Amino acid sequence: MAPQYKLTYFDVGGTAEVSRYLFSYGGIEFEDVRIKRENWAQLKDKTPFGALPTLEHNGKVVGQSVAIARYLAKKVKLVGDDDWENLEIDAIVDTINDIRLKVFPIFMEKDEAKKKALIETLKNDTFGFYLPRLEAEVQKNKGYLVLGRLTWADFYFTTLSPMFDLITGEDVLASYPNLKGVKEKVNALPVIKKWIEIRPKSHA
Amino acid sequence: MAPQYKLTYFDVGGTAEVSRYLFSYGGIEFEDVRIKRENWAQLKDKTPFGALPTLEHNGKVVGQSVAIARYLAKKVKLVGDDDWENLEIDAIVDTINDIRLKVFPIFMEKDEAKKKALIETLKNDTFGFYLPRLEAEVQKNKGYLVLGRLTWADFYFTTLSPMFDLITGEDVLASYPNLKGVKEKVNALPVIKKWIEIRPKSHA
Repeated sequence: MAPQYKLTYFDVGGTAEVSRYLFSYGGIEFEDVRIKRENWAQLKDKTPFGALPTLEHNGKVVGQSVAIARYLAKKVKLVGDDDWENLEIDAIVDTINDIRLKVFPIFMEKDEAKKKALIETLKNDTFGFYLPRLEAEVQKNKGYLVLGRLTWADFYFTTLSPMFDLITGEDVLASYPNLKGVKEKVNALPVIKKWIEIRPKSHA
Repeated sequence: MAPQYKLTYFDVGGTAEVSRYLFSYGGIEFEDVRIKRENWAQLKDKTPFGALPTLEHNGKVVGQSVAIARYLAKKVKLVGDDDWENLEIDAIVDTINDIRLKVFPIFMEKDEAKKKALIETLKNDTFGFYLPRLEAEVQKNKGYLVLGRLTWADFYFTTLSPMFDLITGEDVLASYPNLKGVKEKVNALPVIKKWIEIRPKSHA
């Protein structure tokens, strides 16, 4: 039987990788469609709001990476036990997303001097503000970002944090052992280890 | 008995208004704390990640406006009937949020010439791209943004769209009768009409 889910994105990790991790975690087969940048212009208008990733299931297509991840997290039971717990997860996820929103535009900056200045601000104002606070959360949550146990917030952080290193050229989590621990724990899960082995090598 | 929820924000609508609407819709009492801008610096460090709104309940405090709204939407039953329906709502909410993220920074721009240019780009590239697509969604969803019925996505759009007019000085939805209809329908709900009447007049 063909997979019931089709995830479409570019041939990188980015904002789709959290969903690929979630599929892998739950042992849910999915079609991992990776489109080439040069084909994006012609596909763009066929997506719900001109953006990837999209998830297709039962003939329906939706966009928005975090919304898709939340849906999959429910399927694979990496969510909270009640509404308040899910609020706590969502709040951490949106905080990680706030960091992402500061990182991603810098990749687009063509002017090298401006880019360098933006990276400095990112390191001081964004990482310098958020990472110590997230580190403290992990410290009081038994090695996880929230709820004292593994949730999709840990998956979201793990799959986005490579961007922090990529943009700065540094090991950004080096001074945050607890956050580094989250990443190591998630990536050491046998199903995730397996996924990292088999995923396309083009992967950032 | 004191209200079980305390919502803290500035003395404007902004990203907290969707939650105030949701409380009102469900007839849930809440403490509507509105702090003055001049007191923000000293409060900032006491919030989870230096941002408002926050929601306090049972001695716990969380941030992130959209996460809070999703939680309240569950309480007042303005959510989907299953996980996929909630994904569809979340995807629309995050799309509206993508628009918001383009609007809000412009309010901060001090240079008048730059601000004017940013507003032009906002009108052409952001509103010009998203609003016709959202308009089409409402057209095929029986006058609502998603699922063919009232959900918290309609509340989110209704409470954020005043920002579109505020930043441009125009009636942005004038050419989008379906989107305008969403807003009118939500604001005409008796409980919401009542809230609009009783809320502080400082309201943008």
